[in-house]
Amino acid sequence: MYRLHYGGIVAAALAEDLGSGDLTTDSIFSDERGEAAIVTRESGVAAGLALAREVFAQVDGEIHFQSMVEDGDEIAPGDCLAILRGPVGGILKGERVALNFLQRMSGIATATRLAVKSISGSGARIVDTRKTTPGLRILEKYAVRVGGGENHRFNLSDMVLIKDNHIRGAGSISEAVRRVRGRLSFAVKIEVETSSLEDVREAVDCGVELIMLDNMPVTEMAEAVKIVNGKSIVEASGGITFAMLPEVAAAGVDLISLGYLTYGSRALDLSLELAGDK
Amino acid sequence: MYRLHYGGIVAAALAEDLGSGDLTTDSIFSDERGEAAIVTRESGVAAGLALAREVFAQVDGEIHFQSMVEDGDEIAPGDCLAILRGPVGGILKGERVALNFLQRMSGIATATRLAVKSISGSGARIVDTRKTTPGLRILEKYAVRVGGGENHRFNLSDMVLIKDNHIRGAGSISEAVRRVRGRLSFAVKIEVETSSLEDVREAVDCGVELIMLDNMPVTEMAEAVKIVNGKSIVEASGGITFAMLPEVAAAGVDLISLGYLTYGSRALDLSLELAGDK
Amino acid sequence: MYRLHYGGIVAAALAEDLGSGDLTTDSIFSDERGEAAIVTRESGVAAGLALAREVFAQVDGEIHFQSMVEDGDEIAPGDCLAILRGPVGGILKGERVALNFLQRMSGIATATRLAVKSISGSGARIVDTRKTTPGLRILEKYAVRVGGGENHRFNLSDMVLIKDNHIRGAGSISEAVRRVRGRLSFAVKIEVETSSLEDVREAVDCGVELIMLDNMPVTEMAEAVKIVNGKSIVEASGGITFAMLPEVAAAGVDLISLGYLTYGSRALDLSLELAGDK
Amino acid sequence: MYRLHYGGIVAAALAEDLGSGDLTTDSIFSDERGEAAIVTRESGVAAGLALAREVFAQVDGEIHFQSMVEDGDEIAPGDCLAILRGPVGGILKGERVALNFLQRMSGIATATRLAVKSISGSGARIVDTRKTTPGLRILEKYAVRVGGGENHRFNLSDMVLIKDNHIRGAGSISEAVRRVRGRLSFAVKIEVETSSLEDVREAVDCGVELIMLDNMPVTEMAEAVKIVNGKSIVEASGGITFAMLPEVAAAGVDLISLGYLTYGSRALDLSLELAGDK
Amino acid sequence: MYRLHYGGIVAAALAEDLGSGDLTTDSIFSDERGEAAIVTRESGVAAGLALAREVFAQVDGEIHFQSMVEDGDEIAPGDCLAILRGPVGGILKGERVALNFLQRMSGIATATRLAVKSISGSGARIVDTRKTTPGLRILEKYAVRVGGGENHRFNLSDMVLIKDNHIRGAGSISEAVRRVRGRLSFAVKIEVETSSLEDVREAVDCGVELIMLDNMPVTEMAEAVKIVNGKSIVEASGGITFAMLPEVAAAGVDLISLGYLTYGSRALDLSLELAGDK
Amino acid sequence: MYRLHYGGIVAAALAEDLGSGDLTTDSIFSDERGEAAIVTRESGVAAGLALAREVFAQVDGEIHFQSMVEDGDEIAPGDCLAILRGPVGGILKGERVALNFLQRMSGIATATRLAVKSISGSGARIVDTRKTTPGLRILEKYAVRVGGGENHRFNLSDMVLIKDNHIRGAGSISEAVRRVRGRLSFAVKIEVETSSLEDVREAVDCGVELIMLDNMPVTEMAEAVKIVNGKSIVEASGGITFAMLPEVAAAGVDLISLGYLTYGSRALDLSLELAGDK
Repeated sequence: MYRLHYGGIVAAALAEDLGSGDLTTDSIFSDERGEAAIVTRESGVAAGLALAREVFAQVDGEIHFQSMVEDGDEIAPGDCLAILRGPVGGILKGERVALNFLQRMSGIATATRLAVKSISGSGARIVDTRKTTPGLRILEKYAVRVGGGENHRFNLSDMVLIKDNHIRGAGSISEAVRRVRGRLSFAVKIEVETSSLEDVREAVDCGVELIMLDNMPVTEMAEAVKIVNGKSIVEASGGITFAMLPEVAAAGVDLISLGYLTYGSRALDLSLELAGDK
Repeated sequence: MYRLHYGGIVAAALAEDLGSGDLTTDSIFSDERGEAAIVTRESGVAAGLALAREVFAQVDGEIHFQSMVEDGDEIAPGDCLAILRGPVGGILKGERVALNFLQRMSGIATATRLAVKSISGSGARIVDTRKTTPGLRILEKYAVRVGGGENHRFNLSDMVLIKDNHIRGAGSISEAVRRVRGRLSFAVKIEVETSSLEDVREAVDCGVELIMLDNMPVTEMAEAVKIVNGKSIVEASGGITFAMLPEVAAAGVDLISLGYLTYGSRALDLSLELAGDK
Repeated sequence: MYRLHYGGIVAAALAEDLGSGDLTTDSIFSDERGEAAIVTRESGVAAGLALAREVFAQVDGEIHFQSMVEDGDEIAPGDCLAILRGPVGGILKGERVALNFLQRMSGIATATRLAVKSISGSGARIVDTRKTTPGLRILEKYAVRVGGGENHRFNLSDMVLIKDNHIRGAGSISEAVRRVRGRLSFAVKIEVETSSLEDVREAVDCGVELIMLDNMPVTEMAEAVKIVNGKSIVEASGGITFAMLPEVAAAGVDLISLGYLTYGSRALDLSLELAGDK
Repeated sequence: MYRLHYGGIVAAALAEDLGSGDLTTDSIFSDERGEAAIVTRESGVAAGLALAREVFAQVDGEIHFQSMVEDGDEIAPGDCLAILRGPVGGILKGERVALNFLQRMSGIATATRLAVKSISGSGARIVDTRKTTPGLRILEKYAVRVGGGENHRFNLSDMVLIKDNHIRGAGSISEAVRRVRGRLSFAVKIEVETSSLEDVREAVDCGVELIMLDNMPVTEMAEAVKIVNGKSIVEASGGITFAMLPEVAAAGVDLISLGYLTYGSRALDLSLELAGDK
Repeated sequence: MYRLHYGGIVAAALAEDLGSGDLTTDSIFSDERGEAAIVTRESGVAAGLALAREVFAQVDGEIHFQSMVEDGDEIAPGDCLAILRGPVGGILKGERVALNFLQRMSGIATATRLAVKSISGSGARIVDTRKTTPGLRILEKYAVRVGGGENHRFNLSDMVLIKDNHIRGAGSISEAVRRVRGRLSFAVKIEVETSSLEDVREAVDCGVELIMLDNMPVTEMAEAVKIVNGKSIVEASGGITFAMLPEVAAAGVDLISLGYLTYGSRALDLSLELAGDK
Repeated sequence: MYRLHYGGIVAAALAEDLGSGDLTTDSIFSDERGEAAIVTRESGVAAGLALAREVFAQVDGEIHFQSMVEDGDEIAPGDCLAILRGPVGGILKGERVALNFLQRMSGIATATRLAVKSISGSGARIVDTRKTTPGLRILEKYAVRVGGGENHRFNLSDMVLIKDNHIRGAGSISEAVRRVRGRLSFAVKIEVETSSLEDVREAVDCGVELIMLDNMPVTEMAEAVKIVNGKSIVEASGGITFAMLPEVAAAGVDLISLGYLTYGSRALDLSLELAGDK
């Protein structure tokens, strides 16, 4: 995640929130300088500090932003994530946008960390999906990595994932794989979505790189893993709640993909507090 | 919410998801035409149909999109939200982006509807905040309206909200209000954030249009309502859980603002299903 | 008005004026450095210095821009608004665009100041309208403030103004207000346009925050003010020439809105003069 | 002026004016359809009908826009420029932006027509300058053509104009011309700004295509015309008021450039009137 | 390649070429309608017809564009690629931009087809590189596919290619692969650049999906292919001229990447001819 | 060519190449700093150093870019064009985009220089055309100047070029010129395309500034030059190969336009080499 990527996102968010200007702040403050802290009210994993830094840099180049933690650090209630010094007006104008980024990204990182920890010791890894907020995918996938998860494909052009609708369109898994291989770059991996052990066997025979077990009972997952027998990477997907994670991991799958990391995570509760007497 | 507003958001979301093209779909489908349905797997309130329509219009002008419900309709598991007819390849390319919009917006509308119902009969109304997803505020605030809530200010330029940091900067509520009135347009309303009955009395004396009770115990809210005595609109804000809603409404406040409508709502579980044999 | 707001406007203006490059200046100058002054040829009020500064910063980062006056200062023929030092080529490339901004904004500030002065002593205030140059509203409304006027609503989403066409659509003022109140946010003020004393009475009965007297004779305005009797803010609007201002103010209205501040102001006559011998 | 040119300008203007939506109109109207007319309150020349058409097309594709006059037609008080039929809400949302374009462009066309008529019979032609509104140059120069004027260079890259600052930088007119010829494309014409008959003689000797007489007394202009004797095109520029036009034209110049066509024209007074009973 | 992808590229190209308008065409044509043909003057492979269609659609919606060949068809001198009917002015305004796209893309497709044919019968395939024109990669890679080649990775984010600089940075091929595997998504393939048989052996031991032989003599390539022995895909790259292609293919490599397909292809010579008498 | 012009082009090129990030480099490098050189493998003329500098500045502000040659310098195999110092990761991320710009622009400058040298001593000059890469015209025309050529018109709005299709539309050269003069600005030059000596005589009679000899045999060109006899600038155009240049120049034409400078130039072979041991 480079500044190239998020500079424009931040500018758009500020335009959205500032409209034609901050009526309140501009009426009350002129040149006063002060200090503020971004503080967490709950436990979690910090993510998105570069975004917050960029917000204040765009609002007013004179605001000094000092990170007190790094993306990925675990934080507890009362911990300070960053200290800001400079024009109070600018700090207040950037507050909401900076928090909106930080809270959302930290919420995703926190949920991911929890999921990762709940299967630690197993060989399985937590991965994300394309169920992300329109326009913010690069930030949300970054937050998953910060939390310790891995990223599944970024978009439709960087991997092949043959899903049920594709299989139905082609007639069979084998035919779908055949068509893809006939037309497609050697440079991408192929994953096939399966919903039965029959499907799994067919996918194994096709020699695809990854096999997704879609909404399978855990016992069936375990059998699928045996069938695959290391010839492909096995991904469990669909309807996997937090509570089921250890059990799914124990079934021997390599990857567990969780859509709710990005579409269901609650924002972490952070606030910006202005120092009283600077 | 006009097409003017969301056309660009949809284009950006499609660019994000399509990258240099949908490798899978383009390998498997050429000209096949088919029919698909967007179906819900859980109960809730539909919101964002225009967005879904726009997604498919931008992907392929030949896809016909027929809404089966309207924004605001309550939907139950199995209900169909829309029928699509046209090139299968285009339908599959737009699927994820359309669902990402629909699921998120319907999730917000659903949470809002629940909150609204839980206080029905009281005179209080549910309102949103500026804790929205960067870049999507116009969609999320629309979804709140669809759910039956009302929108608080859209951004920093369309109302004055004097918060604790402003009060501290000005020295007192009265001084902050004085400064705002001295410099600001007659065209906007002024709201003051209060955290004690003392504050409430001072705000009432200033004659502001709205008074926010920030993180107050419910009993204190009731007293504040008495103090205000109809001279301002009273808004309860901060730390109000779903369970507390009836009690807060009973305290006599006019508005209850809930940040989690937009930052904490879970996406509604929808799917796109291709008809097997067209 | 922040740099966030005008950076893009300036970039677009420079692209428009530079095309594929300044043929003349690039043929004649290479590295020469020099000094130039922005000077006024007539009296008025300066506005837009930040825009001029931004123009030269974007053209060539090595140009040093020193403001000699501040926005809002009154200037007389021969007064210097700013001194520029640096590459002569860059100064000449930015000249026209910088002047186009400065002249237009100073022209608006000057006209506003004149209007404000002509009613000084009365309780009335001068306000602007939405009759602004497409794309430059934020700059033009800022110039009105610099001149001592106040800003009416920025756009269609930050206040309600029920005009004749709305009233006709709803059937009556009362019905229009009822519909707005039934659907609309508590956060915005409501203004009603009236064209007779009958209308004014109806608007007063509705309890709206502002009442606009549209194209009323001054004597009727005075009666309207009596009818309102402080219960709403009263705005005089439509067909008010400069000469009529004192009389309109004397009628007791609170606001006088003047469309020609933004659509009819002549640009102030400024020039950029290069020092002969640096 | 193609749609390619103004589509983006219109979209930006609508975004500016609609903000997050038209609160008033959306509260009062739903599906009502109606008819409206754009009418002039004063005499002038119509310009910008394509812009108005584009505004309504972008607001709501169902609005039918029928031009009653063409750009360049002379209009008298009460004349109808266009009829609109369709959703009333959409018509009202586009009203202000459409009028802002039409009024400004018609104002420029009107002023230009007046200037052109005042010198009719002479061989001189009226031309514009680069003193245009930032971002709207293409529209304003088009309006000048509509009024019967001609366009001077569009920007810094499509002609050479050696002004006083360039001459001072090069040391002399001859040296400036020499440098330009040494480095510059054969494809562009060269104009030199002169402020004395001495300068004019030097420019003639250089064989440049155009000679600008800057702020010269009319009698001196006549002498300059004799000196040039048809070897270059002669342009009078600077400080030429409307009253002086016939006299300047009589001096024999080919072109008279008037900055105030674009920076000093008053908008033409137009209004949109909704039919009462559709 | 969807319209979503190239609509913006076409709009930018038209803006670049039209500037403030086509002076010549607008002076000579008004409403004349006519017919034109896009014709080739040399043999080759057609590519980019959708781009040409889009150009004319954006210039004037009334131009009817009828393709006479499809992308990938071989064309001979005199063949007609497309027929245009409609306003002559619009056809001439779009001519150069449409041809610039078509000629460049057809040139790339033609060069690719030649390369593909020269190794037909071998098992090798022709692939492209990232040496593309900034901003046009999606079009150029599409043209390679049209010509019968395949696309190597689109950009830095959709595959891993460990090049000499990465290897030097990590210390060894093995260490570089280890680092990538430790941090990177299971979803992407890994390719390693090798410059000696030593390197090839190390890469094989690492089990990477692709091995690039960089600038190797053909005899060494053949040995490398034996060492790899089908365990990875082998790509020949660097300094491979057209004449060498059969020999390189005979060495048994799977892929031959040719940067000059995109950076060295000559545009195909096409022209637009207006029918004389419509 | 200013930063204003190419900043956006560079940003778009980087977005295209970085996608969601450089998987390889980010896995292997963290904070390592190093030094790299941009070196040429063949002889030619350097062009585009400012673009390369901008690429690295946008990728990582900490990369120091030191030019070792200037645009226009002749370079020989092994020569170093620039030295980079800073974070190795950033250097590698910008490598391909920087080279893509530099190689293309240097290729154009090199081809131009060769053409210019081949006619040195004659009075003729080499000029370019509008056959440029969509979106990169400003860079490619700059590269032609760097090579010693001159730029023909930048786009359709900065000069009149009456081509065969215009002449056919108007009926004759004289009529086409008459129409242009009747409607068009005095500020632009007029060129007429001719394909016979008859045409040339007609164009001379019209007094146009430039006459293009389109695809004429060299002997006919010489006759055309005699006919024109210095009254217009004469441009040879169409089908002029490199080998024909001296002969065409000897025919006495003023300008020789070569489309292949921009559409047929091969990129110069450059590479970025990381120093082994910093």
